[in-house]
Amino acid sequence: MLNVGLIGFGYWGPNLARNFNSNPDCTLCAIADADEAQRARAQAAYPNACVSDAESVLTDAQVDVIAIATPVSTHFELARSALEAGKHVFLEKPMTTTAEEARTLVALAQERGRILMVDHTFLFTGAVQTMKKALDAGELGRLFYYDSARVNLGIYQRDVNVVWDLAPHDFSILHYLLPTLPVAVSAHGADHFGTGLEDMAYVTLFYADNFMAHLHLNWLAPVKLRRIMVGGDKKMLIWDDLSLEEKIKIYDKGMDVTSPEGRYQLLAETRVGAMTAPVVPHVEALAREVAYFVECIQDNTTPVNDGVAGHAVMALLEATNASLANGGQTISLDWEGMAL
Amino acid sequence: MLNVGLIGFGYWGPNLARNFNSNPDCTLCAIADADEAQRARAQAAYPNACVSDAESVLTDAQVDVIAIATPVSTHFELARSALEAGKHVFLEKPMTTTAEEARTLVALAQERGRILMVDHTFLFTGAVQTMKKALDAGELGRLFYYDSARVNLGIYQRDVNVVWDLAPHDFSILHYLLPTLPVAVSAHGADHFGTGLEDMAYVTLFYADNFMAHLHLNWLAPVKLRRIMVGGDKKMLIWDDLSLEEKIKIYDKGMDVTSPEGRYQLLAETRVGAMTAPVVPHVEALAREVAYFVECIQDNTTPVNDGVAGHAVMALLEATNASLANGGQTISLDWEGMAL
Amino acid sequence: MLNVGLIGFGYWGPNLARNFNSNPDCTLCAIADADEAQRARAQAAYPNACVSDAESVLTDAQVDVIAIATPVSTHFELARSALEAGKHVFLEKPMTTTAEEARTLVALAQERGRILMVDHTFLFTGAVQTMKKALDAGELGRLFYYDSARVNLGIYQRDVNVVWDLAPHDFSILHYLLPTLPVAVSAHGADHFGTGLEDMAYVTLFYADNFMAHLHLNWLAPVKLRRIMVGGDKKMLIWDDLSLEEKIKIYDKGMDVTSPEGRYQLLAETRVGAMTAPVVPHVEALAREVAYFVECIQDNTTPVNDGVAGHAVMALLEATNASLANGGQTISLDWEGMAL
Amino acid sequence: MLNVGLIGFGYWGPNLARNFNSNPDCTLCAIADADEAQRARAQAAYPNACVSDAESVLTDAQVDVIAIATPVSTHFELARSALEAGKHVFLEKPMTTTAEEARTLVALAQERGRILMVDHTFLFTGAVQTMKKALDAGELGRLFYYDSARVNLGIYQRDVNVVWDLAPHDFSILHYLLPTLPVAVSAHGADHFGTGLEDMAYVTLFYADNFMAHLHLNWLAPVKLRRIMVGGDKKMLIWDDLSLEEKIKIYDKGMDVTSPEGRYQLLAETRVGAMTAPVVPHVEALAREVAYFVECIQDNTTPVNDGVAGHAVMALLEATNASLANGGQTISLDWEGMAL
Repeated sequence: MLNVGLIGFGYWGPNLARNFNSNPDCTLCAIADADEAQRARAQAAYPNACVSDAESVLTDAQVDVIAIATPVSTHFELARSALEAGKHVFLEKPMTTTAEEARTLVALAQERGRILMVDHTFLFTGAVQTMKKALDAGELGRLFYYDSARVNLGIYQRDVNVVWDLAPHDFSILHYLLPTLPVAVSAHGADHFGTGLEDMAYVTLFYADNFMAHLHLNWLAPVKLRRIMVGGDKKMLIWDDLSLEEKIKIYDKGMDVTSPEGRYQLLAETRVGAMTAPVVPHVEALAREVAYFVECIQDNTTPVNDGVAGHAVMALLEATNASLANGGQTISLDWEGMAL
Repeated sequence: MLNVGLIGFGYWGPNLARNFNSNPDCTLCAIADADEAQRARAQAAYPNACVSDAESVLTDAQVDVIAIATPVSTHFELARSALEAGKHVFLEKPMTTTAEEARTLVALAQERGRILMVDHTFLFTGAVQTMKKALDAGELGRLFYYDSARVNLGIYQRDVNVVWDLAPHDFSILHYLLPTLPVAVSAHGADHFGTGLEDMAYVTLFYADNFMAHLHLNWLAPVKLRRIMVGGDKKMLIWDDLSLEEKIKIYDKGMDVTSPEGRYQLLAETRVGAMTAPVVPHVEALAREVAYFVECIQDNTTPVNDGVAGHAVMALLEATNASLANGGQTISLDWEGMAL
Repeated sequence: MLNVGLIGFGYWGPNLARNFNSNPDCTLCAIADADEAQRARAQAAYPNACVSDAESVLTDAQVDVIAIATPVSTHFELARSALEAGKHVFLEKPMTTTAEEARTLVALAQERGRILMVDHTFLFTGAVQTMKKALDAGELGRLFYYDSARVNLGIYQRDVNVVWDLAPHDFSILHYLLPTLPVAVSAHGADHFGTGLEDMAYVTLFYADNFMAHLHLNWLAPVKLRRIMVGGDKKMLIWDDLSLEEKIKIYDKGMDVTSPEGRYQLLAETRVGAMTAPVVPHVEALAREVAYFVECIQDNTTPVNDGVAGHAVMALLEATNASLANGGQTISLDWEGMAL
Repeated sequence: MLNVGLIGFGYWGPNLARNFNSNPDCTLCAIADADEAQRARAQAAYPNACVSDAESVLTDAQVDVIAIATPVSTHFELARSALEAGKHVFLEKPMTTTAEEARTLVALAQERGRILMVDHTFLFTGAVQTMKKALDAGELGRLFYYDSARVNLGIYQRDVNVVWDLAPHDFSILHYLLPTLPVAVSAHGADHFGTGLEDMAYVTLFYADNFMAHLHLNWLAPVKLRRIMVGGDKKMLIWDDLSLEEKIKIYDKGMDVTSPEGRYQLLAETRVGAMTAPVVPHVEALAREVAYFVECIQDNTTPVNDGVAGHAVMALLEATNASLANGGQTISLDWEGMAL
């Protein structure tokens, strides 16, 4: 049985509380929040938990796991303290404010032999699990592209641009789905209200072998779209996250281009087969993620969404912002130089 | 009554023939094609027309108008000959193979006082007409962006990439809808079959005042999309060209961002009003375009889709290819230096 | 301040508890359930409420209002006792097991001068409110039909057929929207598993002036549909309850049929104007319904969804079953003879 | 080589002409029309055909096949004359004005040993062919229902009601898909303009084994729907004829209802598997139908859409109208008594 201490009971914290509390291998024994009203809510909802401040939770010897759902600017210090105190850490995303800080946490977790998991909830949805299975089985063949439209009339954030708001979803999903990392990033965006924050952006990630990922991110769109296309030389798929019953469609379609007699004699043939919408299980992704976190601790295995994955998202966000600030300049990503 | 000579009776020529023939102010008096079988088809369909070769049509003194629907590589010489012979010209798109040639034709048409119209059929659809009216009336307010998804499992062209195949639609529509020209272009693409031709591309056009246009062009997509979003600070619209009954939807939606007390106190408010799908007339765009061409000749007025418009499309295609060839480098467009 | 006692804390009861509890004019002071585990849940969620059995709640002198969310077979006795004890009653639907019982409750509520409201939650959704406004304003003109498709792969109920499961929604909505009652009912259905319960049915309601309502109800459909069309001679509307952003669409469309020179010279003209999707507010219907219930008590006004409305639903259910049992025979409805 | 004579060159005749003319086993040698302008059009389009009047075509000894595309009221006399003259007949639908006349033609064709085909074009579409294959293979299991929504803002016909306009499609498709005929019909409708013609109707067909077919037909609907659902105990399918790329969707879904311990202990279980949209070939249905007609003549085999099929449609139309005229009364169909 793992004793869990939760720091932060604001917007997302109650979801963590509920899921850790209902996991059969966990006891939610301590909750902290800086705000008195939130603490009162926490105590009412979890009468058996000890509700106090972050310091007390971090130094509570019986606590095995610290879950952190506080404002981003506090993540680094809290996670560092937790790891230094020998706790396993479940950390909200984005994990830190800089990639440098993320690297520090990764190193610390390795050093102390603790599990550091970053909350990339989307990976545990039925839809992403279904995509992962299809890709791992090679069902799509050689991969061509990942194209994401993630737009709506959004909530205008005051501290981050549209990229930091929406791109972490795609960045973490790409990290999960693909065996390799992008080699470079280019992004264009626009700030229509003079606030210094882009309200729309187009982000392109370049990978080896001509694989391309592209994100259309927009807070000023008249309709909500959450639609990802992935193309391969055997099959193609569309994930429409707003569809109730057909979230994933797999198309047995493609094009065969060959040039048996040299480039100028190329032959292109279109293949059109059936479309299949597999059953995508309806599960609460966070419940599944918490169960997986517990498993990783029990078996001492590295999670797919560990600190290294969280760091990759941070590095991509930084590179994207650098490209935006430099007129779309292509920014190379030196993963080896980042020395994780 | 205008006497019309048509050169080229292959794929698109018969459509021009039919529409010129049914226009009450035109007589389709001559048709040329290099291929004997096509000439036979032309003669059967239009027994009263004189069917022969291009040379004869160009030098036929009774012909007032030359319509050209031949392969692109022949456009320049045919159009030049026609203008030099004092004919008005209706020219298929893309108008030439280079922007330089386009400029030569524009200058020649001006010099001879003849109408040179480039066949940008889309401008005459009910959908684009409806958008044009909304924009000209200022219904959308200050414009933010134009975002186009023009993807499908396409026909792999052997001589042009996906940009030359699909972007002319958006480039000509943008030229028509907006009062200004883009100042720069950046494009990323991929060639997945090693043919030297991009099969997918993302093209970004930069305009003054932070207006951005973005094109998603793809021959390797599992479904067909022809969806354009245009956002403004008052309203936003979506043109879904595959929708049978609601091609244009106008959303009374937007975001008001103000910072009465300085940047860090900015206030963002979302407005959500009704959506309206106006009646989009079902008309044959080409019939309307031919009628407009006749009017321009009769009234000696400059068409919106004249050689200058056609040249803009050519210049954008050249700049896009230059950006693709240089890793997405931003290519500035010096419209004044092009000296039309 | 109204003191509310809730009987039944199973599937729906907790929703009533939450909404009565959060209404500023109500105090949820007592909860009853026959099941010990449910009582424990109720006490944990509402520590200040007195949790006991139905008898105690009904005889609690400080209780002003009884909300009943128990199995249907117990509704009649509980509601009767509550009214006899001088309480206002908020009763789940279907209100009773027979129309006769419903009439008894209506009479009793009138006699005692108490408010008896039947929980027709749908009436308080943004969508139905929007439809009601359009119809009351005469926006659709003379009404032609109401057509409802309410199908999905449903939960096979063991005690009621598909009509009793799904038709109450349409019956209560029709009662709310229209000024008149249907004069007759006909229904066809099928029982594909030999259980004696129809798993699909088509129900037709006949009104004066040729207005027709038709319900397609099906537990064995591969997709979920919740789509209602209402046609009038001026406009038509579609309510698609599964659409996230365009629940109601109003079409300025219609047909004008006249015969100025006698029947055989009739002229039919189709009108096609714009479609508008008004803003449909996202509100919790049940919260709104509870607030309205409180208002009706405070102002002593008759709710639109009073016992009379609930009785109409019961009478239509009984007539529908009678028609099903008699091969689709048209069953007349003698509303006056029902003597409410 | 079959010599074909076509009578009627109005709305549909030119389509027959084009398809017979392009069939490699046919020669379109004669065309008749009562209208001089139509005859001129026919002659221009088919310079080698002899264009004259019906009488001449019917008595032309070299003509093997008569195709009839004239107004319905003339079908019977023309088809009878053709069959009596020993010609094979391709007859537009509805084949006659009464079922009695249809029976006469069927008997005559049998007597003379000629092929009588009724033009039920829909049967030859890729969609219906796909459905037919799935049903014949037993893919759906025991069949439960066929539900058709065939509505739009239609053309108000002056001589037939909405049933005669739209139901023949479903009646002929049902006749093709199913091994048995309906035993009874019931229909409700409304005439909102006092013309004596129903502008909307609901038609129910009853089959053995609890299979039910239902048609929702409406000329006064704000949107166009052409959606058919077919449910079985193994799988279910939806045919959406307006969908461009996914006309047929087959759902591996269903419900298993068993009652191992008697009716009141019934167990219902829902099965939810994948959905598949098979490739539906894009072919011109009429071209395929003409080829099939030629085959039937060459091989002397009975077409699926022979006079017997056409008669079934007529008998169903008559029974539907009888039910409409009698307040929805269930009309039994005595197929044996019709003595074909």
